[in-house]
Amino acid sequence: MATGAPTGGDAARLTIAVVGTGLIGGSVGLAFAGRGARVKGYDRSPDRLVRALERGAITEAAASLEAAVTGADAVFVAVPVGRVPDLVVEILDLGASLVTDVGSVKAPVVAAVEAARPDAAPRFVGGHPMAGSEQEGVEGADADMFVGATWVLTPTATTSPEAFTRLRSLVGELGAEVIAVTPEHHDALVAVVSHVPQLAASTLMDVATAGDEEHRTLLRLAAGGFRDMTRIAAGHPGIWPDILTANRDAVLDALDTYVDALGAVRKLVADADREAILTLLERARVARRSLPVGAVAAGTELVELRVPVPDRPGVLAEVTTLAGQLGVNVSDLEIAHSLEGGAGVMVLVIPVAGADVLEEGLTRLGYHTSRTVLG
Amino acid sequence: MATGAPTGGDAARLTIAVVGTGLIGGSVGLAFAGRGARVKGYDRSPDRLVRALERGAITEAAASLEAAVTGADAVFVAVPVGRVPDLVVEILDLGASLVTDVGSVKAPVVAAVEAARPDAAPRFVGGHPMAGSEQEGVEGADADMFVGATWVLTPTATTSPEAFTRLRSLVGELGAEVIAVTPEHHDALVAVVSHVPQLAASTLMDVATAGDEEHRTLLRLAAGGFRDMTRIAAGHPGIWPDILTANRDAVLDALDTYVDALGAVRKLVADADREAILTLLERARVARRSLPVGAVAAGTELVELRVPVPDRPGVLAEVTTLAGQLGVNVSDLEIAHSLEGGAGVMVLVIPVAGADVLEEGLTRLGYHTSRTVLG
Repeated sequence: MATGAPTGGDAARLTIAVVGTGLIGGSVGLAFAGRGARVKGYDRSPDRLVRALERGAITEAAASLEAAVTGADAVFVAVPVGRVPDLVVEILDLGASLVTDVGSVKAPVVAAVEAARPDAAPRFVGGHPMAGSEQEGVEGADADMFVGATWVLTPTATTSPEAFTRLRSLVGELGAEVIAVTPEHHDALVAVVSHVPQLAASTLMDVATAGDEEHRTLLRLAAGGFRDMTRIAAGHPGIWPDILTANRDAVLDALDTYVDALGAVRKLVADADREAILTLLERARVARRSLPVGAVAAGTELVELRVPVPDRPGVLAEVTTLAGQLGVNVSDLEIAHSLEGGAGVMVLVIPVAGADVLEEGLTRLGYHTSRTVLG
Repeated sequence: MATGAPTGGDAARLTIAVVGTGLIGGSVGLAFAGRGARVKGYDRSPDRLVRALERGAITEAAASLEAAVTGADAVFVAVPVGRVPDLVVEILDLGASLVTDVGSVKAPVVAAVEAARPDAAPRFVGGHPMAGSEQEGVEGADADMFVGATWVLTPTATTSPEAFTRLRSLVGELGAEVIAVTPEHHDALVAVVSHVPQLAASTLMDVATAGDEEHRTLLRLAAGGFRDMTRIAAGHPGIWPDILTANRDAVLDALDTYVDALGAVRKLVADADREAILTLLERARVARRSLPVGAVAAGTELVELRVPVPDRPGVLAEVTTLAGQLGVNVSDLEIAHSLEGGAGVMVLVIPVAGADVLEEGLTRLGYHTSRTVLG
């Protein structure tokens, strides 16, 4: 389902309601509208609603929440996570047959809905599309945002199997890979891979900036490793108070685990325990290398080419232009700078079908490549 | 001095000694040999020495340390940081007129040399080229490794001004930008921007891997933000026990500062202090955005173009191929993935002269760009 092509599914016969017509809601609307569905939108901001209509993210603007959800086959709630529970309850009370949300935190949301409306809760399935954009608002919406993305659904023992199956199928039609986990498991995972890393990166950046003027000048020399580590600190902070508050318990758990582990590392350094330091770093290295560079779309076998490159103008263009000339699609690319600056390693993710020709071409240009099959 | 072209300097009349003919020593040798200098090499491993000679990284292999350094205008000591002080003392005792090293830690090295040989220490200048490669050994050596790189020198009150001036000029001939700071300042800086980030990334990766099997499977979904943050954990760990032991005090200081700051952040999350969370993240965002994407070479005015891009095959090739077709050199590139995966922002660093034409071309292809002048 990673091609982005219309699936010939039943979207064209559907009515979808989108409540909250910002970046994610707008993208859901665009994706369904592009597949022929009727998309009714509602937003408490009339201005946002009009912009969504103008953008084509919804096919009609509803005058009220009730007008939006009445008759809809599915309702997607795309508002800040703190506002999700009350809104979902209101929509269930209006009789909606299938309701989901797109918030980054799941356990407190699902628990609140199930506690407030035990009888209606089976019609609600928590969801979290792992997709987004640096842009904000419906202007950043993208019909293809979910193609190849992971969309986590969090059914519970309360959830109606029919509602879950229906939603899974709808989301799959947008090209997303669906994964179902418990709300608690989802929240623990995003605390570790998203929320705590955000705090860790921003805190590191803040600490690094705290020195005197000369220190700050030197900081500009920071090499690729530091830049990689602090990159997410450059993102829009507006969403975080909401997320961190909603996922507080899981974030505190993950943060405590992290700080405890740093304390153990501190002891290794203080004791100059060279062997234990090496063991830790080696274990982390193996784990990091087992992470794929990019999301691996189902059905396409991808390989990772590692190409040591000097840090000089033109190298990147040379390599990617060659890939273009040879007709090899580069799915993802990262430049792993040496921690000390200077040279780096370009990591290209490409379909296995293009690996031989690209490796040959790179070798002709004097590069040395190594290949790993992703799977 | 960032062009990499021979400078017409006096390298051709020089004799350089390289002690330790691995990656960095070999690159120093290649760079001087390429500029016409006589390069005498010595390594306690005869095998490494022969490979350096075969690689052309030295012009002659010395049979002893004494043979290597006798008559040399400058001696570059490129061995693991723990072995530097004793070796530098030995070389000073042999009468060398100018000795430097390339280790990642400076204060304990400089202090040890000054304590051991107060009279000879003026002839030693500590150094640290901020350059490297993922490759190891002389096979990874690169004559252009230092072009545009920052080379930190750490003179003290003891250092002979003549020795410092001479070394500064030599290193400048290799195309490096020279910065002089105190050894202590250097060590505090690298603790913050290199050593603690390495520990923080490896520890985060280790913590993230510690969960159950389902957790580890989900970890493969980790989006670009997590991948960015943990990327340096994928590097070779072999150098770290030495570095962390040598720079122990500065690393412990920086680690304590970091853990204290994380503790303060923990309190903000526990208290659900949304305003303070936002203030911290906003401050870190401003600081991160003020970091240049790449090392900015002197004499070339660079601009940064930010281009929101969907996460789909071909986008990278399309943008960089366009740059190639328009003759615009891409100095550096990073893809800042959204923390949640999906779309990202491509950040291109290009000469200001190419900015208009590339922005026009990108606009024609439907991209939206924004521009920042680096300086």
